[in-house]
This record gives sequence, structure tokens and C-alpha cells, in this order.
Amino acid sequence: MIVLFTDFGLADPYVGQLHAVLAHAAPGVPVIDLFHAVPSYDVRAGAYLLAAYACAIAPGAVFVCVVDPGVGSARLPVMARIDGSWYVGPDNGVLAVLARRAQRVESYAIRWRPERLSDSFHGRDLFAPVAARLAGGEQPAAEPAPLTLPDWPADLAQVIYIDHYGNAITGTRASSARCRADAGSGT
Amino acid sequence: MIVLFTDFGLADPYVGQLHAVLAHAAPGVPVIDLFHAVPSYDVRAGAYLLAAYACAIAPGAVFVCVVDPGVGSARLPVMARIDGSWYVGPDNGVLAVLARRAQRVESYAIRWRPERLSDSFHGRDLFAPVAARLAGGEQPAAEPAPLTLPDWPADLAQVIYIDHYGNAITGTRASSARCRADAGSGT
Amino acid sequence: MIVLFTDFGLADPYVGQLHAVLAHAAPGVPVIDLFHAVPSYDVRAGAYLLAAYACAIAPGAVFVCVVDPGVGSARLPVMARIDGSWYVGPDNGVLAVLARRAQRVESYAIRWRPERLSDSFHGRDLFAPVAARLAGGEQPAAEPAPLTLPDWPADLAQVIYIDHYGNAITGTRASSARCRADAGSGT
Repeated sequence: MIVLFTDFGLADPYVGQLHAVLAHAAPGVPVIDLFHAVPSYDVRAGAYLLAAYACAIAPGAVFVCVVDPGVGSARLPVMARIDGSWYVGPDNGVLAVLARRAQRVESYAIRWRPERLSDSFHGRDLFAPVAARLAGGEQPAAEPAPLTLPDWPADLAQVIYIDHYGNAITGTRASSARCRADAGSGT
Repeated sequence: MIVLFTDFGLADPYVGQLHAVLAHAAPGVPVIDLFHAVPSYDVRAGAYLLAAYACAIAPGAVFVCVVDPGVGSARLPVMARIDGSWYVGPDNGVLAVLARRAQRVESYAIRWRPERLSDSFHGRDLFAPVAARLAGGEQPAAEPAPLTLPDWPADLAQVIYIDHYGNAITGTRASSARCRADAGSGT
Repeated sequence: MIVLFTDFGLADPYVGQLHAVLAHAAPGVPVIDLFHAVPSYDVRAGAYLLAAYACAIAPGAVFVCVVDPGVGSARLPVMARIDGSWYVGPDNGVLAVLARRAQRVESYAIRWRPERLSDSFHGRDLFAPVAARLAGGEQPAAEPAPLTLPDWPADLAQVIYIDHYGNAITGTRASSARCRADAGSGT
């Protein structure tokens, strides 16, 4: 299973383009739109939301995590095996909170590059193809490298998302600790 | 085919979590996002909208219908076979309008419970797994029980939803009677 | 692969109804929601956006393109093979910009009609079933006919869509010429 977690929004064509790439590169693999409403470009909010929402997904998934204001700059693409699932995305901290709270983390700088890499859409050109390979049991060229871990608190006592029911989501661990039971406060 | 009808909204992670559960529990079964924009917690609006929109789906489907302000309270989980499709959800009236307008209704209180049942997300923990079983031809533990039928009018002459074109949808039966031809007023 | 491009919006039940029809008529074929946010009824904006976004999809796809304010009127249903993909929709100009910029275009008036054709939802009743047939290698009854080509400029120097990051999309060809590399300006 491939799980998408981004700040792409649903209205724009970017999520559909990810799906199109994945339908070709990972035929038959279910692709789940977990969350595309990370506040735009807000890597820190994304990191805490990912830690809260990812735990509702059974281990063995491959996550594509894209909140990437630095796309096209020097920040590296990274893939990490965290508590039994793969996570692919930019090495800008978006995986940091998840990794800090995890039992087991193995991280790699991705060396594989596509034939054509746009400046602005690595989600489609790089992260999705890498996720497709991982979902197929293939390991793209990569080498061990530590994840970037920004100096963020273990728990963030700040509202980072308000769902459409009006529930305010913070970066504190309450929901995460009781993850399976409380993840999401939807009906 | 499993069809989702909820007040979860599309932006939040709740729909994706349903899909993730279903991808595991009902692999290969198509899952259709019919409607996630029932006004939040509005069971009555949901009941009339379900009656209007469900008839566009060919019989033989399994619907997951979740508008569930009473989640975690005493209201029972229910499943009903209504005119050839299964409907799974809380027994709070969300199936009532559909059932009243139907030719054939068989309803059951669901006795099956998951190992872990959150207080706040029975859609994911209970209704989706039950739907997956029904879609696979398996019948979860349940016993015959009548549906809760609130004292709502046969037709509700009130606007309950306005679509993005500006079409106002009421709870009257016009659209339902000529269901296949007029369901939805999209282009 | 079937690709959906419409002005249906995501909140309403119309996209789900398309998916339900396609799941029956084209089982196992991936269906991609490329874009449902064409400004309502704006055929011209849709035509330029389609030309910009379609090129991110590998040839061999079948597109369902519905921006159709004249549904139920005299405008004809059309299907066209354009640079290796099929496009199905109303012959109102929505395919015109794409066709003008293409290398190869073969267009046909669709003669096939469903048993029941609503006045208001040809997307579900006609275009989706035709797309399903094309995706299955079957050619619905049709005869060669030129596409309607409205008198629109080759490039439209006007903002036709603003994405959720705030990027303004125009109808000029910059993005199209460097399609694969720049299509979409998402992260």
C-alpha cells in the first residue's frame, strides 16, 4: 500500500498527477490519499501531523510525504524505514517528529534520479517513482545517512490544524500515544 | 463495490483512514467516494441525501453510511439489506428515509465487534470492517432488529444541500422518483 | 488508464457517480481524478487547462472531459484521438486548444447512445460508458467529424485558475511547451 501525505490540496491537479505516475509505476498497488491538507509549505506542522496520522496505518506501507518548500534547492531526497513502514520525501524535517518518536529508524539519502527531474515537482518525478519501487520490493540506489532533525519540541503545544468539524489538532502526543484508538476525531 | 457516504469532509484524514482499512480488509474491491459532504452531524439531512444519491448506484453494493454525532453512546450499529444493496452505519435514522421509500428492507443489529473499538471513530473500526465482510460475501454476527425510524416527513420541503454549481437540493422525492435519470444535477 | 477532467468539484456526488459507473463498465482499469476544479461552466478556461494538464499524462490514456453547460441541448458528443490518447466529451470547444496544439488529431461524432440518457448528466450516462469501452479496446459507434474549434487565441494571456498555493495559471503555452518538466507548479 502506498500512502500519500502532502500539502498539495485536493482541488489542484497535483494529487492526480501523483496517482497517474503511481498507476503506471506500481500497477495494482492501492494508493491511499491520507492527507493533502498540510498547511502550505509548513514543514513543521506537517511533521507533527504525520506523526499523529501515520500511526493509524498498519505497518508495511510506503508513505510519500511531500511538504517541500525547498524543492529544487540543495535539500536531499530521503527514504527511511520507520517502525516497519517506508517513508519517502525531502530531508527537510518532515519525517523528524515521526522518527524521534519511533522505536526503529533506518534512513538513506536517495541517489536514484529519474531521467527527467523538474525543478518544482519532485513529488511526481522522484518521490512517487521511488515509492513505487519500494512498494514493489525493489530498493532504489541510496546510501545510509542520518535524517535532518530540526530543533523542534518533542510535543508542540500549538494548534496546527483544525478539521472541518472544528476539532483543533495540536502537536502534542496524546493522540499519538493512544494512536490506534484515537487517531482522528471524526465521527 | 463499497460506497462511502459520510459527513467526514474530504480535507481531513478520516476518509483516507477508511480507505486504508478497506484496502486491507477488502483487497481488490472498488471503493467509491460517493459523498462526504453531508452537513456535519446532521443525521436528518444525511438521511434524505442518502435516499436521493444512493439510487444512482446499481444494486449489489455495500454502503458505509456514517453521520454519527452519537458515536460512543448507546446508539447501535446496524446493517440493512435495502432493495438489493447493503447499508452499514449507526442506527440513528440515517437509513430511515431510504428504508421508508424502499420495496424490501431487512435490518440487523450488528453484534460483531473489533478487537479495538475507539470511542470516536466507529466508521474506521466497526462499520468499514463490517462492510468489507459483507462485500466478501461473509455475514458478520448480527441479529434481526427493526431500524430506528424518526418521525420525519416522507418528503422534506427544505433545502438540505447546495452543490457547487449553486443547485439547491431538497428532501423531496422528485429526484428520487426519477432517480436514474435525474440523480444529481451536475453537467 | 481513464483520466477525469471536469468542472464537477469534489464535494458533490457527481465524481463518485462517474467512478461507480466506471468501476462497473471498466473493472480493473485505474481511474485518475486529474482535475475537477475547472471554473463552473467555463468551457474556454477548461480548454486551456486541459491543454496544460493533459500533457503530464503518458499517452495511451482515455480522458473524460466534461465542462458542459449545454448538456441536453443540440451540442454533440465527441471522441478524439489526440497524440496517442483518447478524449471523450461534449463538442463545445473543450478539446479545441489541445487539438490545435497537437501533432495528430482524429475526431469522431459519437453515435452510440445508452439505454437511458438523462438530460443533465451525460458525463455519467454517455461519456463515462464510452470511455470505458475505449479503455477496453472497443470502439463505440461513431463517425469521423471535425471538432468544433472556437475562435480562441493560440495562447490566452489571462489568469484562468489560481491554485491553492497562490500560483496563477494562465492559458499561455510556456508550461505546455515544457510540459513534462513544468506541468503543475506544486511542490
